[in-house]
Amino acid sequence: MTIRYPNGKVYTPKTPITKTEKTEKMEKEKDFSFSNRGKTLEDEIDEANAYYLNRQLAVIHKKPVPVQIVKVEYPSRSAAVIREAYFRTPSTTDYNGVWNGYYIDFDAKETSSKTSFPLKNIHTHQMTHMQKVTEQLGVAFILMRFSTLERYFIVPYEVLQKAWCAMEKGERKSIPLTQIEQEAYEIPTSYYPRIDYLNVLQQFIESKD
Amino acid sequence: MTIRYPNGKVYTPKTPITKTEKTEKMEKEKDFSFSNRGKTLEDEIDEANAYYLNRQLAVIHKKPVPVQIVKVEYPSRSAAVIREAYFRTPSTTDYNGVWNGYYIDFDAKETSSKTSFPLKNIHTHQMTHMQKVTEQLGVAFILMRFSTLERYFIVPYEVLQKAWCAMEKGERKSIPLTQIEQEAYEIPTSYYPRIDYLNVLQQFIESKD
Repeated sequence: MTIRYPNGKVYTPKTPITKTEKTEKMEKEKDFSFSNRGKTLEDEIDEANAYYLNRQLAVIHKKPVPVQIVKVEYPSRSAAVIREAYFRTPSTTDYNGVWNGYYIDFDAKETSSKTSFPLKNIHTHQMTHMQKVTEQLGVAFILMRFSTLERYFIVPYEVLQKAWCAMEKGERKSIPLTQIEQEAYEIPTSYYPRIDYLNVLQQFIESKD
Repeated sequence: MTIRYPNGKVYTPKTPITKTEKTEKMEKEKDFSFSNRGKTLEDEIDEANAYYLNRQLAVIHKKPVPVQIVKVEYPSRSAAVIREAYFRTPSTTDYNGVWNGYYIDFDAKETSSKTSFPLKNIHTHQMTHMQKVTEQLGVAFILMRFSTLERYFIVPYEVLQKAWCAMEKGERKSIPLTQIEQEAYEIPTSYYPRIDYLNVLQQFIESKD
């Protein structure tokens, strides 16, 4: 059906959403939710970390969100309530801990792109922190999810740093998936925990040693 | 001067504070403030950690206080304000990081006692966490200050655990200073950073290796 303005011009919606496209999108989301049970990447990492902690395989925790607390109320007979606080910029990555004597340090990042990971998803302070960790012989990486493809990778700091330097020289602002497939370590998904990343991390550590 | 009640009994204050005692206390506090510049133990550790980070000697951070955020307001043109949040019980110790390939994990504790450290200052979840860290070959300890004596020690988890087990068997609820002097590692204070604890930690790590 063609819709016309009063002046006779054909109306074209700016962001055309046809019924078919919308349905396709919904079905895709449904599929997606089913296969990973609607979990965020953070949920999936929490699940793996809880699994490792309970089985005494590793001690890795997510750091709390840093907040600047300004005002706290102490209502009688109940818990203290924070009434004014502000989010602060973290100076580290979100996850760290210890595994078999190794210091483990990483951040979780995801992209909906099917072909490359945009470097703008990583902040400068995170690169700086991972560099310092690497200098102290810690194991630093990004746990990366290509959410549309449902593929997960451990991308070592060294790989990110090379791409970051290239970007700063004016070269491309993303890492192609093909490069990640070659230089990073893919985490196969399983039932529980969905992303058993320590299994794959072993390969990365062995390549460093 | 003797103060008498109307009934003739001599008045004795319950918590007698004579002018002399009060003045002595103030002078002592003044001395104390002068020698450590009025800093809390947390400030002193922050100072050391900043020193290590800037000189690329170690990457050790204090974890943010964990809070459960319930309500956030987004005033236009200004930063998001947290309007309702609650303190959560941490499941780990406060400090962790990496030094020369070693995973470092500790909490800071102080006592005003001159003769022993009360074990009630340490929480069960902290003991559990330090045990898990030790099992993963991390370096876990308490950085302990005897604030009245101005003495600092690195007390290895192993020493704490022995005392903790004894307490659970109904034995003493504190660790005598004499035992700490023998089994822990004293941190000599210096000008900057005031507590250069990594220097002493080296001895502890060498004793483990």
